[in-house]
Order: sequence, then C-alpha cells, then structure tokens
Amino acid sequence: MSNKDQKYRFTIAYDGTHYKGWQVQPNGVTVQEKLEEALATVLRRPTRIAGSGRTDTGVHARGQVAHFEFDEGLCLRTTLRSLNGLLPPDIRVKNIATAAPDFHSRYSAIGKVYHYHLHLDPVMDPFHRLYATHVHGQVNRELIHLAAQMFVGTHDFTSFANSPSEGSVAKDPVRTLYRADMVNTEGGVVLEFEGNGFLYKMVRNIVGCILDVAQGKRQLEEIPHIFAAKDRRKSSSSAPPQGLFLMEVKYPI
Amino acid sequence: MSNKDQKYRFTIAYDGTHYKGWQVQPNGVTVQEKLEEALATVLRRPTRIAGSGRTDTGVHARGQVAHFEFDEGLCLRTTLRSLNGLLPPDIRVKNIATAAPDFHSRYSAIGKVYHYHLHLDPVMDPFHRLYATHVHGQVNRELIHLAAQMFVGTHDFTSFANSPSEGSVAKDPVRTLYRADMVNTEGGVVLEFEGNGFLYKMVRNIVGCILDVAQGKRQLEEIPHIFAAKDRRKSSSSAPPQGLFLMEVKYPI
Repeated sequence: MSNKDQKYRFTIAYDGTHYKGWQVQPNGVTVQEKLEEALATVLRRPTRIAGSGRTDTGVHARGQVAHFEFDEGLCLRTTLRSLNGLLPPDIRVKNIATAAPDFHSRYSAIGKVYHYHLHLDPVMDPFHRLYATHVHGQVNRELIHLAAQMFVGTHDFTSFANSPSEGSVAKDPVRTLYRADMVNTEGGVVLEFEGNGFLYKMVRNIVGCILDVAQGKRQLEEIPHIFAAKDRRKSSSSAPPQGLFLMEVKYPI
Repeated sequence: MSNKDQKYRFTIAYDGTHYKGWQVQPNGVTVQEKLEEALATVLRRPTRIAGSGRTDTGVHARGQVAHFEFDEGLCLRTTLRSLNGLLPPDIRVKNIATAAPDFHSRYSAIGKVYHYHLHLDPVMDPFHRLYATHVHGQVNRELIHLAAQMFVGTHDFTSFANSPSEGSVAKDPVRTLYRADMVNTEGGVVLEFEGNGFLYKMVRNIVGCILDVAQGKRQLEEIPHIFAAKDRRKSSSSAPPQGLFLMEVKYPI
C-alpha cells in the first residue's frame, strides 16, 4: 500500500434550515461537522473535509462539493450508502468519486451557480416557506429581469460584498457574472446566477438590490452608481438566507 | 341586519409535518384548531369550522376546503390577510368567498383529488424528505403505472379501507376512482388519484399495494382477488403519510 493519500471528492445536498451554515464553528451545529462525524465513523478515524466555500445559516445547497484524503482504497458505493445511513435526513451525499492528487474543492473551482427563489403571490405557499423568500406588496417582474441583467459582466463587486466586520473580505473584489437569468415558477421566479466566483454574501446583496428596484424603492439607473461607489453602505440590505441555493460548483474538464 | 347567518367557504394549504392531522382532538395540535383560533381572534367570537374531511398526522393539503357561518358581513380581503397574519407559516388560507346557504364543505363535495409523491432515486433528496416517500431498492415504474390502472373504476374498496378499530368505517364502501395517473417527476413519480370520494386511509392503502407490486412482492393479478376478498387484512400495509397531498375538493358548477 502506498503512503500517498488518495483524494476523494463528493457532492452534497442539504436543507440549511436547521444548521449554522456549512463551516465548523464554536456555536451551533454545521453541515461540515455532521459530515465529518459521519466520515469519522465510516473511515474509523478523524477526517477533515474541505468544502468549495461556506454557506451561511439557513442557506441551502443542492451541489456543494467537498474533498478529503484517505490512505486506503474505498468502495465508493458502500461509502456513499454508509454515509447516508449515518447522516441526518436533511443532509445527503449525492455521489462520491476519486479525485486527482492536485484537486481542491475550493482552489480548483472555476465557477459556481446559485439560485435564489422568490415567491411573489400575495399568499405565501406554506411548502415554500423554508425554501423561498416571500415578497410582500407590488413587485414588477420586468424590473426584476432588467435589474438582474445589470449585474452581468466583469465588475468590482465591493458594494455588494459584506464588510470585514461582518465577514471575510476578498483581496480582489473583481468577479465575472456570466448570467443572471430570471425563470418563472409557480407563484414566483427563480434568479439563476452563474459566475467565476462570488464574494461573501454577494448573491443575497445583489438580490436585495434587485428587489428594491422591483418594488420601486430604487431606480435601475442607480445600479451603476452603486458599483462605482465601491461602498457596501450605498447598496441595499441583504435578501434573507432561505431563498438561496448553491446549485453547482464548476471545475475544469 | 338579518339574523340569518352568512356562509363563508375557504381553501387552505398546509404542511402537515408538525400537526396531528386536520381534525380537532384531545392530544396534539391540529390544523382545524389553529384555524379556529385565528378565526376566533378575527371574528371576535368562538367559531367552529367544518372541513371537507380529515387528513391524518403528517398528511399535507394544497386544497383543503372548509366553511363557517357568521352573522355579519365580512370584508373578504381583510379577513384573508388577518387570518394569514395570525396563522403559523405552515398553514395558509389561499382564498375566502361567500357560499350559498346550503353549501357544506363535506356533504356538497362531489369529488376529491389526492397526489402521492414517491422518490425513487437511490439517494433521497433532502428537500423532499417531508413531502415524498423514499422507496428503497428496485422499483419497476411500468408496474407502478399498470397497478394504479387496476384501481380505476367503481369498486367496493373494503379491502383498501382501514378497519373500524383503526378509524371510522363507511356504511357504503363503494367508490368510483376516475383516474389514477402516474406522472414522472425529477427523481420519482407522482400518483394522481381523482374519485367521487375516498374511504379512510384508502389512498395510502392503494399506494401500499401498488408499491408491493412494483417491488415484486405481489403480482398484478392478485389485485382483483384483494378487491373480491373485501378484507383489509388481504391487502398491503399503508404507505407513509408524508407523501400524501389533498390537492382539491370538487363541488358542483
């Protein structure tokens, strides 16, 4: 047996409602912690996993990616089944695969897809209460679409990234958003964001601004000025966590 | 003001996960109880509501119908908003309307539509865990469809109605099922049942039998014999509650 560790990569879906987000932290149960507990039982030793990035309290994932190293071969099928047998039902490993030695769930990522679900009917759907944000009052769908388009492209997103006091700040705040599509659903819309990377709370801050425009609290024309200000305080408040889903992490090939 | 009471009819959606079903009972919180509490606050007097029928613990509804009487005129828009402001977020009144004096949510009903959600992927979707039943192991979708078809038509459903010890028994166990369609969904199927009426636990008992066939535990050919036996013990066990949704109650016109 080689001493060199084998890397494994897995895709995880979780309902974030009852978790203090992804990343292990002193107060509250996190998704990473639950996964590491299950993995320690299956592999019979403490095992750290590295995720593609954190998600906040109440944020969901359908395609979070993480990796870990292990110095023995694993039966992937059995490991998948064992992990899901140990995990609580609101966290599920969707698949597990071997990864190249230089693979890193975070540093190898070349893009991410996030969805944000908005419920626009006057009466909230009780089945969406934990998975969408209910927008009260008049909302102009055309303005949601137009405002979203203004975020597409390569920009300095400082005004849409949370300040250091609230979380980590990136050294380089320039990101490229490939698309920000509005898709109609029953009772609302989904905003689909795909980009090469996202700053801390960037999607929720963009959605907060889009909602201000769609509700007539801000003008479309303000958005370029908010970008230019490079000041988080010039923008809108964050949209709530429960509408947000990390859908996919993209890697080369 | 007339002494004659005005009847009001409303449509209710609820996530049944945290309720002991629809009907008020001594142990545990029910949906009817929550609605009567909210209505008492809005109308400023104790008000009984009558539902189209009960749903069991953990069963959901998207189109439950109930009615109540009140001796004053109501602003329907304000009443709807006030009720939803008072109700917990897992119960929502979808609409409220005046009803004819002879309307009764239960006795005027001429049909009902139920959906039963099955998740057939090897790994359960964590977002469906409370809203679908996960079927482990091999399942033949074609057999689900074929088995479901065998329930369509007018039958004595005694073998698919729960026994008196487990709940109420109907005087007349003959019901007509207009359709039992299988619709493919992401990761599973929905079984759509429409009939002129349903006996106690009838949908879950039918689904239990369909699953036995689809998993090879029973033969399709057994179904007519189960009907003929008129004996609940000859059939399969009930499918779990969380997959079941009362979608619609139908009335004349």
